[in-house]
Amino acid sequence: MVSSKVVNTYPLSSYTFGTKEPKMEKDTSVADRLARMKVNYMKEGMRTSVEGILLVQEHNHPHILLLQIGNTFCKLPGGRLKPGENETEGLKRKLTSKLGANSPALVPDWEDYPHICYSLALILGKLQIGECVAIWWRPNFETIMYPYCPPHITKPKECKKLFLVHLSEREYFAVPKNLKLLAVPLFELYDNVQRYGPVISTIPQQLSRFQFKMITN
Amino acid sequence: MVSSKVVNTYPLSSYTFGTKEPKMEKDTSVADRLARMKVNYMKEGMRTSVEGILLVQEHNHPHILLLQIGNTFCKLPGGRLKPGENETEGLKRKLTSKLGANSPALVPDWEDYPHICYSLALILGKLQIGECVAIWWRPNFETIMYPYCPPHITKPKECKKLFLVHLSEREYFAVPKNLKLLAVPLFELYDNVQRYGPVISTIPQQLSRFQFKMITN
Repeated sequence: MVSSKVVNTYPLSSYTFGTKEPKMEKDTSVADRLARMKVNYMKEGMRTSVEGILLVQEHNHPHILLLQIGNTFCKLPGGRLKPGENETEGLKRKLTSKLGANSPALVPDWEDYPHICYSLALILGKLQIGECVAIWWRPNFETIMYPYCPPHITKPKECKKLFLVHLSEREYFAVPKNLKLLAVPLFELYDNVQRYGPVISTIPQQLSRFQFKMITN
Repeated sequence: MVSSKVVNTYPLSSYTFGTKEPKMEKDTSVADRLARMKVNYMKEGMRTSVEGILLVQEHNHPHILLLQIGNTFCKLPGGRLKPGENETEGLKRKLTSKLGANSPALVPDWEDYPHICYSLALILGKLQIGECVAIWWRPNFETIMYPYCPPHITKPKECKKLFLVHLSEREYFAVPKNLKLLAVPLFELYDNVQRYGPVISTIPQQLSRFQFKMITN
C-alpha cells in the first residue's frame, strides 16, 4: 500500500502563548502594498515569499495557526525572502521574527525552566520546516494569484511557497500585541474563500494527503 | 533551496488515441449510485477508491485528461478497489480497464510497431503511479465529500485517493466509445467548481507544488 506521510499533531494546550511588542504592517493599504512591490521588483526582480503552516489539534481535528490583523483579515506567518536567501532559512527567520520570543526576558513564567527552552527553540531556529504544500504565482502587480504560472506570463511578479512546519511537543509563541494568533479548524477553512481568501481556504485540500496523528497530552 | 519535485510533461500530440467498446456507468442515477454504495458498504465496509491524474502539455501549460460522459459530467479515470487490493495495483487495473487497449488487434496502425508498444504499456500495467496528491472522505451515503474526515465521523463511507500518474513519452489510449477523453488546462479547472465539482476543480492547487518540465517533440 502507498502509505500517507504521517504528521504528528499536538494539542493546542501543549503550547504556551505570550505577547511581544507590536509588529506593524509595512503598508496601510492594498494600493501602498502593490506600489512597494513594484519598487522592490525594479530593484530585485521577482518577489519570493514563504509562509508556514503550523498545525495543532483540538477535539482530534487539525487546526492551523493564523495571524489575525484587525477583526477580519487573517494571514499565515511568513514573508519575503532576501535576495538569494535559502527558503528554509528565510522561513525560519520570518517565523522567529513573527512568533519567536525576542529575548528570554520576555518569556512569562521565567521560573518555569521548560518555557525558556521553548523560547530558545524559536530564537535559535530549531523549527523543522517540512514539505512544500503549495506554490502561488502573482502574474501582475495586482492582488490576484494563481496556483500555476499562467500561460504567456514570462515575468511573474511574485512566487509564494507554503511549507508545513513541524512543531515539537512544546513551543512558546510570542505574539505581537497588535495581532491575534488563532487556531482555525480545517472544517472552518474549507470552502470558505469569502472569509479566508483563495490561498488559505484551499489548505485543507493541500493537506488532505497527509495522515494527521493526533497526539493527546 | 528546497527544490520542487519535477514532473515531465509531454505534448498531447505524443499520444495516440483510439476507441474501444462502450463502458457503461453501473448506475443510471445518483440515487442508484448511493443505494449501490450502501449495499456494498454492508458487505465490504468502507469503499476505497483511487483515481489517476494523467498530465499532458499543450502550449507549455499542463492539461489533465478527463473522461467526459454525455455533454457535461467529467471524471478522472479510476474506480473502486477490491477488498484488500493494493492501491497502486488497483489504480493500474482501473486505468487499464478504462483506457487500455483490450487486445493488440484493437490498436489502429497495426503496422506501426511503436503503437503496439504503447498499447502493451497500458495492457501490462507499466504505468508509473506517482504521488498521492489528495484524499477525500465521504461521511455519509450522500454526494458531498470533504478533504478531511469530519470530526465525530467514526465510520466514513468512502475514502478516495487521487494519484499522479507519470506517463511515458508515448502511450496509446483506447477510449470507450460512449466517453470522450478531454485534455483540460489547469487554468480552466481552477476556480471552476460549478463545472468540475470540488474534487477536480482544486487539482491545480494540489499540483502547484510540482515543477512541470514541459517537454516538446
